[in-house]
Amino acid sequence: MANVKIPDSVLVGPEGTKLKAWGSSKELSAVGKPRPKIGAQEKVTGSAIYAYDVQLPRMLYAAVLSSDRAHARIAALDTRKAEALPGVRAVLTYKNIEPVKWEQEGNILRDTVGYVGEPVAAVAAETEEIAYDAIHLIAVKYDPLPSVIEPLDAMKPGAPQLQKAGNVWQGKPVIYKRGDVEKGLKEADIVYEQTYTTSVQHHTTMELHGCVVQWDRDGLTVWDSAQGVNQVRDQLASRFNLPVNKVRVICKYVGGGFGSKNSAKHYHGLAALLSKRTGRPVKLFNTREDEFPVSRHRPKTIQTLKAGVKKDGTLVALYHKAIGQCGPYLDGAALGARATGDGTKSLYLCPNLMTEAYSVHTNTPLLAPTRGPGDTENLFALEQFIDELAEKVGINPLEFRKKNYAEVDQPHDNHHYSSKGLDRCYDMAAKAFGWGQKAKASAPHKKRGIGMSSLIWHGNRTEKSQAGVIIQPDGTAEVVAGIASLGVGAETIFTQIAAEELGMKMESVGIRWGDSSSTPYTINTSSGSRTTAIAGPAVRAAAADARHKLLKAAARLLGIKPTEIATLSIKDGVISTGDQSKKISVAEVARKQGRELIIGTGHRPPNPEDMAIEIFGAQFVEVEVDEQIGEVKVLRAVTAIDCGRWINPLLAESQIQGGFIQGMGMALSEERIMDSRNGIQLNANLHEYGMPTSLDVPDTNLALDPEVIDASNNINAKGLGEPPLVGAGAAIANAIYNATDIRVRDYPITPNRIVQALKERSSGTRQG
Amino acid sequence: MANVKIPDSVLVGPEGTKLKAWGSSKELSAVGKPRPKIGAQEKVTGSAIYAYDVQLPRMLYAAVLSSDRAHARIAALDTRKAEALPGVRAVLTYKNIEPVKWEQEGNILRDTVGYVGEPVAAVAAETEEIAYDAIHLIAVKYDPLPSVIEPLDAMKPGAPQLQKAGNVWQGKPVIYKRGDVEKGLKEADIVYEQTYTTSVQHHTTMELHGCVVQWDRDGLTVWDSAQGVNQVRDQLASRFNLPVNKVRVICKYVGGGFGSKNSAKHYHGLAALLSKRTGRPVKLFNTREDEFPVSRHRPKTIQTLKAGVKKDGTLVALYHKAIGQCGPYLDGAALGARATGDGTKSLYLCPNLMTEAYSVHTNTPLLAPTRGPGDTENLFALEQFIDELAEKVGINPLEFRKKNYAEVDQPHDNHHYSSKGLDRCYDMAAKAFGWGQKAKASAPHKKRGIGMSSLIWHGNRTEKSQAGVIIQPDGTAEVVAGIASLGVGAETIFTQIAAEELGMKMESVGIRWGDSSSTPYTINTSSGSRTTAIAGPAVRAAAADARHKLLKAAARLLGIKPTEIATLSIKDGVISTGDQSKKISVAEVARKQGRELIIGTGHRPPNPEDMAIEIFGAQFVEVEVDEQIGEVKVLRAVTAIDCGRWINPLLAESQIQGGFIQGMGMALSEERIMDSRNGIQLNANLHEYGMPTSLDVPDTNLALDPEVIDASNNINAKGLGEPPLVGAGAAIANAIYNATDIRVRDYPITPNRIVQALKERSSGTRQG
Repeated sequence: MANVKIPDSVLVGPEGTKLKAWGSSKELSAVGKPRPKIGAQEKVTGSAIYAYDVQLPRMLYAAVLSSDRAHARIAALDTRKAEALPGVRAVLTYKNIEPVKWEQEGNILRDTVGYVGEPVAAVAAETEEIAYDAIHLIAVKYDPLPSVIEPLDAMKPGAPQLQKAGNVWQGKPVIYKRGDVEKGLKEADIVYEQTYTTSVQHHTTMELHGCVVQWDRDGLTVWDSAQGVNQVRDQLASRFNLPVNKVRVICKYVGGGFGSKNSAKHYHGLAALLSKRTGRPVKLFNTREDEFPVSRHRPKTIQTLKAGVKKDGTLVALYHKAIGQCGPYLDGAALGARATGDGTKSLYLCPNLMTEAYSVHTNTPLLAPTRGPGDTENLFALEQFIDELAEKVGINPLEFRKKNYAEVDQPHDNHHYSSKGLDRCYDMAAKAFGWGQKAKASAPHKKRGIGMSSLIWHGNRTEKSQAGVIIQPDGTAEVVAGIASLGVGAETIFTQIAAEELGMKMESVGIRWGDSSSTPYTINTSSGSRTTAIAGPAVRAAAADARHKLLKAAARLLGIKPTEIATLSIKDGVISTGDQSKKISVAEVARKQGRELIIGTGHRPPNPEDMAIEIFGAQFVEVEVDEQIGEVKVLRAVTAIDCGRWINPLLAESQIQGGFIQGMGMALSEERIMDSRNGIQLNANLHEYGMPTSLDVPDTNLALDPEVIDASNNINAKGLGEPPLVGAGAAIANAIYNATDIRVRDYPITPNRIVQALKERSSGTRQG
Repeated sequence: MANVKIPDSVLVGPEGTKLKAWGSSKELSAVGKPRPKIGAQEKVTGSAIYAYDVQLPRMLYAAVLSSDRAHARIAALDTRKAEALPGVRAVLTYKNIEPVKWEQEGNILRDTVGYVGEPVAAVAAETEEIAYDAIHLIAVKYDPLPSVIEPLDAMKPGAPQLQKAGNVWQGKPVIYKRGDVEKGLKEADIVYEQTYTTSVQHHTTMELHGCVVQWDRDGLTVWDSAQGVNQVRDQLASRFNLPVNKVRVICKYVGGGFGSKNSAKHYHGLAALLSKRTGRPVKLFNTREDEFPVSRHRPKTIQTLKAGVKKDGTLVALYHKAIGQCGPYLDGAALGARATGDGTKSLYLCPNLMTEAYSVHTNTPLLAPTRGPGDTENLFALEQFIDELAEKVGINPLEFRKKNYAEVDQPHDNHHYSSKGLDRCYDMAAKAFGWGQKAKASAPHKKRGIGMSSLIWHGNRTEKSQAGVIIQPDGTAEVVAGIASLGVGAETIFTQIAAEELGMKMESVGIRWGDSSSTPYTINTSSGSRTTAIAGPAVRAAAADARHKLLKAAARLLGIKPTEIATLSIKDGVISTGDQSKKISVAEVARKQGRELIIGTGHRPPNPEDMAIEIFGAQFVEVEVDEQIGEVKVLRAVTAIDCGRWINPLLAESQIQGGFIQGMGMALSEERIMDSRNGIQLNANLHEYGMPTSLDVPDTNLALDPEVIDASNNINAKGLGEPPLVGAGAAIANAIYNATDIRVRDYPITPNRIVQALKERSSGTRQG
């Protein structure tokens, strides 16, 4: 790995000291090494406790009655039968609920509904069965209001207007430009334009969304299935006007989030209000059917790209217009305007560029970030479009990408990157994949194809973070972090960072997390591939503080002057002078500390101001397409990701493999099928929705580490949760084209669409 | 209150600063004020979650088969039928259990038993019913071993020897002496000797003893009903040889402990081993019947006092011999030798003094500290004896005590006390009580009497303690303390201490506690009336650290030099300069801190070395004795306690009232009735054991604050949990004598004993 200069500002240590810049993983003892994921065994053996497992004494069960209308006013609402059902303890509707603002504009329950699935009433009862029986006894009479489901319909004149500013979110598109696209197109030898669509992707977490809430004099305690403990806590405190120290969110294990469990949702609010009303704990979990409308999703998009290219392949102009579908309310709507993301703006050198993104209000459920939001939709379109451009100028897609490589971050004042290993990713992944080679298909009607995609994910983090490291009386260490365990492996990585800094063995370092109470504000929520890069440096700072205090205590015991503690170092839990003449174990120092534990705390130093930070990668796939039935089998995948330092190769591989599979699901099968007349989802169940199963995953799913040391923080990491998904779909689409000469530009590329396209081609109604 | 000089060493603040010595409570805003107990509403409304309430997925239920023999070897043990019972998942016996040392000498289950109630086997099953069915299916054949139940029998030659050192614990009595008792007795005008006995007192906690344990790869997690979270954690880590960071004890609420829930008991060990064996969580709670032998108790004692007094009432010699009954093992045996405690040694000036305490091994259940261990047994005897001496020399009992008042701590190098308000207690309690006045009885066969007692409880604490104070992003504060909530009010008191130091309103200060994980080592266990005096100063130190950091942050925001932060002060949550020219709220500073929370940590400074620390008090009661049926009704009680500063008068009153009632129970009704042939308790149930009920408590139970400011720590407090019980019994006994001229020297003074004594007196077989 090239020598990287880490700025002093990110290596600030305790009491004016400076942290050591870490070299390559080979020079380290805990960081860069595989450590099995903390909690993995608990999960597979069933001992991990999830929010759904929480049973409290006197706990009630809640159920929610949701709207089956896309847009309506509630003309009549009769809850008397439900209230009279034995075992029912509370029925909340807009008529009797206290005014608390929630996701939609206005109160948490209102006299109008804006999408199918919007809550209308909530019941708390002695059993789950009674609660569900009760919601069926609530009589609702709706007065229909004009509705619109499809974003293109919503943009037409005369469409029902869902927001004051119109159906386009904020009344206008989000525009970015540099140079002059029109001028660029005129200078180009070839101008090409194409349109792509992507479908709604649901998070489809294994663990349903929900929580157990207890609201008593001690405040609000929430056992949650959340991606973080602090954001939900802060939102609940703010919405209920409670002091922060009276709201506690507990979440140790999460059965998947992917962006849908970042924030306080309807179910949090309704469960809390039911608990407040009844004075008893309340458990409220979605059913699987509820999940589809209630747990939100990635927007569907319609994207048009237009580019001007020189004959030699130089990109001179790029225009990208994207229309995203959002729900009727402002909450989450910004996500509909993110498909013109980092890829279009930053991935290729292009002097004349403009993007125009519309998020369009419709009477459909609300959006939430969905693993790689924006950039995933962006690259699905862009990276197919790039392949098409390459073909137009007759250049190998990889060469085309390399030719237009951007050394600096064009949208951010052309700043140099804190690191950019995309070239390394291209080369090592292409080599490992055997780019250009294509094996023979297994049957004449089966066609093989190879394809690739670049990927980018925004790595610039400005948030603060804080962590703690406690040295226990027996010399073992405990990282204390205000995070939940989304499954991204942060807990494991933090122990490695702390072990490295402390000079202790990995197995001597544990971690406590999953509770907003008594922990520092380590991260608001694990999203945006931020946890390692945001919180990791704070953990290192906290460990450095603990180390400093350990060395001061050791110096006292060894008779070394406080000014000379820099001569001490720690290795494998033993503190010694450089000449080994004096030594003492961490355990002995800790034992002598007794009950006055060493508590290290640390903050994340801010990023250097003059650096752009982005995550890059390259993905290569080989597919086999059965032209008879349109089925696509992904045979193998190779992904190389420059996410900065790989703190734990085992977990990095796992993230890359999992992310690729989720991207594959989006590319090939996952789709929300909605009746555009009434806004009712027709496949709101796991069977028909079409998630990949273990039978669909490629036999080879290789993850490669380009060994990049990033300069933006003290652990040299940028983030890895989302990137592996971002480029997967386009690589698969490009491989399908390579196999069949068919480009299906509407995702997902289902067997139906392939068969249809093949038919159109053979009947002459389709080209390419 | 007299001016007290608080040594600088206990007022150490952060970064070389000095804490302010607190004046009288009138000058303070949070400390010394009544604040309702945190958690009280949760308890009375049923929302408080106790260990017994914890339900985990896949949880098994355990039951324990206990020995019904006092001393035996297990000749045969057949568990096949139990193991074959559907739903049984594990049966542990000495035959298949891994070697783990526990309470008795040797393994946690052994092939011999030493008392009725000692565990023989433990079962884990799918339901509680199956577990109890299973233990009845275990066939045990015992070979009897020679046993001894009564301590006096055990001291006889030829008694079965239960320990290598003999039946006297450690082979010899614990002896203390000063001066020359024989010489003193010779110099005396009057020599008097008398013998008293006390019975076993059970803790009889409302919440049964037990825990829920989960042992998985993450380590051992225990939802416990414990007096602290750290001592149980440390003991489990040590006995199971686990790193401390792999053992977590969670205990927020406790339904009473009184000394029996300090440490890891058999049920912890058996539940943990069953969880390890089955890979599933295990709930193990005693039945109420189990409680009596298993949850331990206060020892029964036989005490002889002998004194020499001058005619003028000057005490010149005192000898005290006490025999306590302990179980067959070393664990807990030390408690049998504590009846010659602080009272005899310290309460009265006496130049010639000797105490001799024997703890005697018998085949009876084990001892645990029981609210006021040692000193309670001590004062039951001593304070009656003092009244008898006063009568011998014809001096009013209060005057006699004042005459022999000890200004210095005789057993501790005659050190001066950090405070001694016993004289104030005598005077204010006597005045409030109306000492010397006695109302007319309500019927001729009913007799009224008044009595008093001094009390003393050892206040010298040398343990370290650490606490945290976090300023939340909205400016509210959270005390972080590694404690459980025994009901002593520590949580509430800590918030008051923090609010006082921070200059914040009480309602802005919350607390998180009840979890050994992510908390400092604040106290090992709440016992010995130590929590306030041990942990309170650490909380103040932590709050001072947070305050210091708050002021530094405020100074930056206000443009004040760091060297001038001493000019800033905080009042009602607003930080301002002395002239009020610059001000900023704590909430604003906290908001600007964002995610980098202010975390204060602090240690308890050590006690000044040259001070003796003891807690004192005086208790006065009036009783009415029904001479027909022997029933004693306590009509009113007045207690004044010098426990240093009363941090929260509401809680102090509550402690004093509760403690008095528990002492009353011991004096009048609570008794273990055991068959001394076989060691079987005959009244192992609440109905026959004889705890006082709400109908038995005095209508007036007054608590008085002598307003003592103690100099031994930064909060001027000494401790209050146990003292109110310590003198209650003797005061009642003295009042009964005053009413009836009958001294029943065997506790409890039950109607039977009174009627018997009255009969003996009228038949001439008894004097006094």
